[in-house]
Amino acid sequence: MEKNMTGRDGGADLIPVGNTPVVILVRPQLADNIGSVARAMANGGLFHLRLVAPRDGWPQPKAWRAASGADRLLDHTKVFDTVEAAVADLQHVFATCPRPRQIIKPLLTARGGACEMREMTNRGLKIGILFGPERTGLENEDFVQTDYWIRYPLDPRFMSLNLSQAVMIMAYEWWMSTEETPERQLQTNKTHIATKGELNNFMNHLIRELDHCGFLRNQEKRPGMIRNLYHLFQRGEVTEQELRTLHGVVAELVKGPMK
Amino acid sequence: MEKNMTGRDGGADLIPVGNTPVVILVRPQLADNIGSVARAMANGGLFHLRLVAPRDGWPQPKAWRAASGADRLLDHTKVFDTVEAAVADLQHVFATCPRPRQIIKPLLTARGGACEMREMTNRGLKIGILFGPERTGLENEDFVQTDYWIRYPLDPRFMSLNLSQAVMIMAYEWWMSTEETPERQLQTNKTHIATKGELNNFMNHLIRELDHCGFLRNQEKRPGMIRNLYHLFQRGEVTEQELRTLHGVVAELVKGPMK
Repeated sequence: MEKNMTGRDGGADLIPVGNTPVVILVRPQLADNIGSVARAMANGGLFHLRLVAPRDGWPQPKAWRAASGADRLLDHTKVFDTVEAAVADLQHVFATCPRPRQIIKPLLTARGGACEMREMTNRGLKIGILFGPERTGLENEDFVQTDYWIRYPLDPRFMSLNLSQAVMIMAYEWWMSTEETPERQLQTNKTHIATKGELNNFMNHLIRELDHCGFLRNQEKRPGMIRNLYHLFQRGEVTEQELRTLHGVVAELVKGPMK
Repeated sequence: MEKNMTGRDGGADLIPVGNTPVVILVRPQLADNIGSVARAMANGGLFHLRLVAPRDGWPQPKAWRAASGADRLLDHTKVFDTVEAAVADLQHVFATCPRPRQIIKPLLTARGGACEMREMTNRGLKIGILFGPERTGLENEDFVQTDYWIRYPLDPRFMSLNLSQAVMIMAYEWWMSTEETPERQLQTNKTHIATKGELNNFMNHLIRELDHCGFLRNQEKRPGMIRNLYHLFQRGEVTEQELRTLHGVVAELVKGPMK
């Protein structure tokens, strides 16, 4: 039997089978909530939990107490310093986003999002779902790494949703989507959909060169311009092959006009 | 501005409009959970909360703190001593029921249940949803007052669902059902679907007479026999007109054979 913080055989059956979306809590504040999130995930067949910069550090015994037996999920939780690092091996990232934003990105309901995720995981893609901190939600910087937004249809008069409740709805819809989404054939191209890490490599390359050529010299506008570039390249599925081409494009451009 | 326990203008917009299902917490233990339930209800457009014999009494300030602004719901929460009293003015009662039971009753998913409720409230019927206590769930006695069971499709390897999470899923499906369920025409019969109170009046009449005639004399079997009778009469929609007929039937039967 595996060891864990409580010494209980917490959810020994909860063996992550197959390719299921990764739940990523960004700067979560309360250990109680992290535990409740694990419990809600287990209810809906989600097993992979990642934390980005949890406020009070990790691990925290309070989380195990709130998980009501979903210990196994917490035992395997991974911690990252940045959203970028947490999504580096994933191919599509969804973010829950209660308020309208200016950025152009596909917006889905929880049900629609779950169906998309199911279709993607059936194709072998690795998926993540970002949830923001309790009080403030995700920030503009966090959205840079996301491809899709999810907004729950809820009563507009009272949209304040508890973190674990938000995860519960998503986990429930994930579980419900099993029957509803037909499987698609696996993609057989020789290339693969780029991971976030591969995409960020390219973005770093691009930004380095844009800094170099002075395109981003306005320090006030720089963050927003970079975000817009990220969003542009996140909009569709970019293959690893295409990224290599893009690297080439940037490398060639900076060489300047042919002599 | 209405006064409430916290002095905040908690969810001033949360004015119960129209006919929405009543959430009934049976013997809830933790005030925190009651508050979280109120918050989840507000997310999904449910406004009527009733408590049956809350363990630590009522009101409790902790509940208001956990409600994150859904104060208005808690301010209007009604407390009852028994399930029977809590459902007396309702016409259909649903109960969440995680484990299979021996009793014959329609079993619905959360989604199916929400659609049924929507259809019923569109017909002007008053609906309640029972949720059991945190640890133990509803007991056989509680189910006597219910017409339908709801079982959430969730991962069978981990079915332990937090009380407020259970309410969240139901509230979410209730809100989602708006678009999906076509309205039906209001029923125009001169009679109405009996309330639980009217039905219980008849049941009391029936049981009194059955006691009198000795049908229920086996004290060990008595509770189970009574439960079965309740379940029998709860299975369909009984009209108030039909109940009057049933009263007559019982009254006539106890008079014995015509002389």
